[in-house]
Amino acid sequence: MKKVKIALMGLGNVGTGVWMILDSNKKEIMKRSGYDVEVAKILVRNKDKKRDVEVPEEIITTDFNDILEDDSIKIVIEVMGGIEPAKEYMLKCMDRNKHIVTANKMLIATEGDELFEKAHDKGVVFNYEASVAGGIPIIKGIEESLTANKIEEFYGIVNGTTNYILSKMQLERLNFDVALKQAQDMGYAEADPTSDIEGFDAQYKLAILSSLAFGTKVDVNNVYREGITKIESIDMKYAKKFDMVIKLLAIAKESNGKLELKVQPTMIPKEHPLANVYDSFNAIFIKGNAVGDLMFYGRGAGSLPTGSAVVGDIVAILRSNVDVANYSHIAQNDLWHREIQNISESHSKFYIRITVIDQPGVLGEITTILGKYNVSLRSVIQKGEENSKGQVTIVLFTHKTSEADVSSAIEELMNLKPVITIDNVIRIEDFKN
Amino acid sequence: MKKVKIALMGLGNVGTGVWMILDSNKKEIMKRSGYDVEVAKILVRNKDKKRDVEVPEEIITTDFNDILEDDSIKIVIEVMGGIEPAKEYMLKCMDRNKHIVTANKMLIATEGDELFEKAHDKGVVFNYEASVAGGIPIIKGIEESLTANKIEEFYGIVNGTTNYILSKMQLERLNFDVALKQAQDMGYAEADPTSDIEGFDAQYKLAILSSLAFGTKVDVNNVYREGITKIESIDMKYAKKFDMVIKLLAIAKESNGKLELKVQPTMIPKEHPLANVYDSFNAIFIKGNAVGDLMFYGRGAGSLPTGSAVVGDIVAILRSNVDVANYSHIAQNDLWHREIQNISESHSKFYIRITVIDQPGVLGEITTILGKYNVSLRSVIQKGEENSKGQVTIVLFTHKTSEADVSSAIEELMNLKPVITIDNVIRIEDFKN
Ligand SMILES: NC(=O)c1ccc[n+]([C@@H]2O[C@H](COP(=O)([O-])OP(=O)(O)OC[C@H]3O[C@@H](n4cnc5c(N)ncnc54)[C@H](OP(=O)(O)O)[C@@H]3O)[C@@H](O)[C@H]2O)c1
Ligand SMILES: NC(=O)c1ccc[n+]([C@@H]2O[C@H](COP(=O)([O-])OP(=O)(O)OC[C@H]3O[C@@H](n4cnc5c(N)ncnc54)[C@H](OP(=O)(O)O)[C@@H]3O)[C@@H](O)[C@H]2O)c1
Repeated sequence: MKKVKIALMGLGNVGTGVWMILDSNKKEIMKRSGYDVEVAKILVRNKDKKRDVEVPEEIITTDFNDILEDDSIKIVIEVMGGIEPAKEYMLKCMDRNKHIVTANKMLIATEGDELFEKAHDKGVVFNYEASVAGGIPIIKGIEESLTANKIEEFYGIVNGTTNYILSKMQLERLNFDVALKQAQDMGYAEADPTSDIEGFDAQYKLAILSSLAFGTKVDVNNVYREGITKIESIDMKYAKKFDMVIKLLAIAKESNGKLELKVQPTMIPKEHPLANVYDSFNAIFIKGNAVGDLMFYGRGAGSLPTGSAVVGDIVAILRSNVDVANYSHIAQNDLWHREIQNISESHSKFYIRITVIDQPGVLGEITTILGKYNVSLRSVIQKGEENSKGQVTIVLFTHKTSEADVSSAIEELMNLKPVITIDNVIRIEDFKN
Repeated sequence: MKKVKIALMGLGNVGTGVWMILDSNKKEIMKRSGYDVEVAKILVRNKDKKRDVEVPEEIITTDFNDILEDDSIKIVIEVMGGIEPAKEYMLKCMDRNKHIVTANKMLIATEGDELFEKAHDKGVVFNYEASVAGGIPIIKGIEESLTANKIEEFYGIVNGTTNYILSKMQLERLNFDVALKQAQDMGYAEADPTSDIEGFDAQYKLAILSSLAFGTKVDVNNVYREGITKIESIDMKYAKKFDMVIKLLAIAKESNGKLELKVQPTMIPKEHPLANVYDSFNAIFIKGNAVGDLMFYGRGAGSLPTGSAVVGDIVAILRSNVDVANYSHIAQNDLWHREIQNISESHSKFYIRITVIDQPGVLGEITTILGKYNVSLRSVIQKGEENSKGQVTIVLFTHKTSEADVSSAIEELMNLKPVITIDNVIRIEDFKN
């Protein structure tokens, strides 16, 4: 049996999962890769921290050079997170002809180019399956299985925390705050949940996936992003009335020759496969011009599922070319230059929830303004009972209309006397285009 | 741009799809593979047949030697189907160092060993993604992405025709015959639908997938197989009453150190992701010990989806080693020897529908017999109205019990005076083990 040495940078959630899998599935991995994998070094911040796994003391280090300078270490697994020093460390490792496996979505989405280029120049493998949707093999799916296709669009539930929160709100009628608290208690949401609930995490993943699927560089800042903090239980209720559910979707599609990239809470028909993805599960629904509709579903995070993707990436390297650094990257993300559409150019159907003073003619005034901006209505619900202040809720579902028109209409609506608040505006996706 | 010549054997449903994809997605395939792919020859039975695609006359041939003896043809795509001459042709092509891509599930499931061995001996690639679940990349998923996992079990809807029929029966309350007729009109079912509705097609696919997932040789004859012809609308109705649906599942799981492999109509909880797979869609639900629950969903058949898998396999060859025949197969299917459990050793929960003469004490007699064979009941429905002959329907849901015990009990039940018929016995899968 051939032997190979690898190193981990990081022994947190993901690093621990990687260690456990390499240990418990050693036999399988040996048979499938042809190698006996030895973790020669593990880089951490704090040597004295109590770990969830039993790791020989002598392989734990706080000195990156122990990894960098050991030429017998062929593959380095970056699971520390953050931009620096992760980036510097990976670049240096590649310079020493080490292959890289990483789970670092933030880094790849924001400064990935430099890493891809270095890998290309040095002929080393740079694998990052774990960076999007945890254990779901969506990167390999796009990069290796769907190669016969023009990918036309995809829709992803790529953040488990927000899907957990929205599921709780939908199925158990919890308020956002209560659902968020539960997600934190379950360990799905961090103490500071901003990156998840404001859609940053999904935005990184959308940038990575769309760059791969459309073969173009995607500047993460050009990806429209909207979180789920404004969603209320009452929106769930109205969605249900129209046989829809609300999901935080990462959407990528073609639109007038440009790419439309958006992370946003979205109302979707309840019979769509994505609508039935509950709890902290992730799923990516893809349309290819040959394969048609395809969906990948699974665990988007967690120690073992993410570790599964990392170790899968290690095995892939072992099966190809661990000994020689001569991998020729098909530079997926600069095949074609594609312009990214500004959100104002985008077209959607909309759900608009408004609180108004219940007085004669108010609906007429509202529809007049909408009409002025070419926003035509599919249906209107006016909630019967008014509250103590004489206010009622009006819910509007529009036909397909431009973002710019809706924005202008809403701005004018806000100035309308009987309008108290525009409570929510949620885009609707019926997958029909 | 490098050029490569390939040949098709077959220009039917799948062959036509392959041709269309190579044509319409030529640019994408060139960029992703690094090759300009030329179809140099196409083998058919009848040169004069009108084709759905425009193919230059001079590349169509009925003589296999035109392909075999042309050493400039590096990859041969077998999409003719059947055992012979497909097998002989592929073996001969491999002997001439040609790589193979095939969609031929029947051949792989029944006589695949010889083909795998030849590929191994000659160091050529033998790819067969299209043989299971059409466009869904399940073979690559297992073989290349889930390599970090011990696969514990999987459940597949792998036959689109039967899923279409069952969906129609469930959602539109059609009878089996009417639904089958519709499937035939839609082109989903063949004039002779036996292979689909009796579960042979699913049996082939289960043999291929389980061999890959568990790294063992699977004799297709050891896979238990039961079709859907006995399912009636009334069974759908009772399933619904218990929040379940009926699907034809290909099931593979561990059971007392053996493998349990079954193709059977199965009642599953309506909230399970597989329960929401409708129409002619396929899906495979896999549990890995690291990745957890994973599901792949998509088109399991059809010209373009199947062609997508075939062309993906071609690109994979082009990216690795088209010029040299030195591919080292990790012989997936003989890593471990695993015994396959006989169906009689299997344990399930059961749904049993019986027609009896409505007379006092009949239920007591039935439960006594069941009790004698340790079949304990979770619930019993006795349908109120009797028909003109004084007969009523009794539906039993059992707790987990052995096949052998249920068989014996049913045999004895059939001899019970008031029992007219045992109308149906359907296994229940709650995914809980
Ligand atoms: N958690 C998930 O489910 C998940 C899923 C997909 C992708 N990811 C990605 O995987 C990466 C790791 O996530 P995680 O959840 O495992 O993080 P984590 O639990 O915070 O673990 C980080 C690890 O890296 C070490 N580390 C951090 N900075 C270091 C430095 N400057 N020098 C040396 N060691 C350092 C830490 O050492 P100490 O232990 O000594 O503090 C710790 O072991 C991130 O990029 C994340 O986005 C995570
Ligand atoms: N159809 C699907 O959706 C699907 C999905 C997955 C896998 N598959 C598999 O793909 C394979 C092909 O299926 P298909 O539906 O494309 O079959 P098909 O429509 O019947 O086409 C078969 C083709 O092979 C040619 N052919 C058959 N026997 C031949 C022989 N002895 N010599 C020369 N040419 C021969 C036929 O020539 P002529 O045209 O001259 O008759 C025809 O072009 C089968 O193994 C099937 O199981 C099919």
